[in-house]
Amino acid sequence: MNLLLIEKSQILPTDPTDSLLKAKIEGRQLQHLLTIHKAQQGDTLKVGLKNGQTGTGRIEHLNNAEAILTITLTDEPPDALPVKLIIGLPRPKMLKRIIQHASAMGVKEIHFINSFKVEKSFWSSPWLGTEKLEENLILGLEQAEDTRMPQIYLHKLFKPFVEDKLPEISANTQKWVAHPRVDSACPVATTQPTTLVIGPEGGFTEYEVGKFEEQGFSTFHMGSRILRVETAIPALLAKLFPFA
Amino acid sequence: MNLLLIEKSQILPTDPTDSLLKAKIEGRQLQHLLTIHKAQQGDTLKVGLKNGQTGTGRIEHLNNAEAILTITLTDEPPDALPVKLIIGLPRPKMLKRIIQHASAMGVKEIHFINSFKVEKSFWSSPWLGTEKLEENLILGLEQAEDTRMPQIYLHKLFKPFVEDKLPEISANTQKWVAHPRVDSACPVATTQPTTLVIGPEGGFTEYEVGKFEEQGFSTFHMGSRILRVETAIPALLAKLFPFA
Repeated sequence: MNLLLIEKSQILPTDPTDSLLKAKIEGRQLQHLLTIHKAQQGDTLKVGLKNGQTGTGRIEHLNNAEAILTITLTDEPPDALPVKLIIGLPRPKMLKRIIQHASAMGVKEIHFINSFKVEKSFWSSPWLGTEKLEENLILGLEQAEDTRMPQIYLHKLFKPFVEDKLPEISANTQKWVAHPRVDSACPVATTQPTTLVIGPEGGFTEYEVGKFEEQGFSTFHMGSRILRVETAIPALLAKLFPFA
Repeated sequence: MNLLLIEKSQILPTDPTDSLLKAKIEGRQLQHLLTIHKAQQGDTLKVGLKNGQTGTGRIEHLNNAEAILTITLTDEPPDALPVKLIIGLPRPKMLKRIIQHASAMGVKEIHFINSFKVEKSFWSSPWLGTEKLEENLILGLEQAEDTRMPQIYLHKLFKPFVEDKLPEISANTQKWVAHPRVDSACPVATTQPTTLVIGPEGGFTEYEVGKFEEQGFSTFHMGSRILRVETAIPALLAKLFPFA
């Protein structure tokens, strides 16, 4: 946690004559402050308001139940990556790491989709609950000192997604499918808006790749090695965008 | 497991008139064949001989205790990355994923080192045992259809490592330290031999960065976002090497 992400609901009502914002920290974030940061009264740390600015927080009071911070917001969060990620739903234990990687790297829109090689049971994972998804997104933001919450969308039917929703999602973007063993190598770093599709473990079927191609998508490979989705995502984002 | 990595000790003695190699599969690999691949007698799958060639294996016999494969080795494994990775020892739960990422991406030499922000307890993790390290390296190789075993070295003392061992390790290579918040951006993809140093969670101290600089290393950053080591490694390798 390089930044403490504060929600509006954590901001305390203050006297109108008081120009400083105060925030209450409890739960996971308080535990992290106490056990990892070994925080003490008077410490200052980097904070950010969810979907707002970043700045510093000073710990005014601190005990085992809550911390009260005075916060000053001064800076904009880092730029988002101009990418929409479309991913074959991964197995649950990989899902949370993929969300954290993508969120930390600046992805703001993730669509998890069904595909022939996605096991049916993955769709009933408790990790797909709204709170769990949000928790892993926040862990990524707090790592990368970002505040802008990404959005996650779940699409349980492949064909209606590709035919009916994908055209609008990918409008006015570069359209890429990362797929092993095709002819074209990975495109070079770009700052153009991009829709990047990544298959599930085991890859897309040829039929599925064809459906993306019908929507104007092109395939590329990233070398001869088949990488796990959780390895491939940071690698693909690093290849496709400047990170300068 | 996209490739079944077979050790020499798994090769069965065969009649000298028999030109085919036979291998016995047990344990983790057998379980994977049975439960994930749902393998059956007569199936063929991609195999590789540890530090040798890749090819195909045909399942001749299969039960719950063992599988016997006839194997044919025909191809060279994928090229290695020309990189030596030097990493501040990560926390145990991250260690195995970092080893798998690096192994799958083609890294053949990893040095885990001590640093001010490496917690002492990390050095007594059971995940640093030879068998556990090897198991995670093999999982990476099997993912990427590679056979060449990487080497892992552990260095519990920072200064003797940097002063006495690093000059030889990094001789005739490009020398880079990935370090947040320095001026230089990430160098472009290269095929030159490279030694890449990555700090622990929390980063290197300025003193430590200075010690690398004394040995001819230069620093670069990968954008304004602070990434976890397990996210940064695939991203850095993808940035630094072509993967074409």
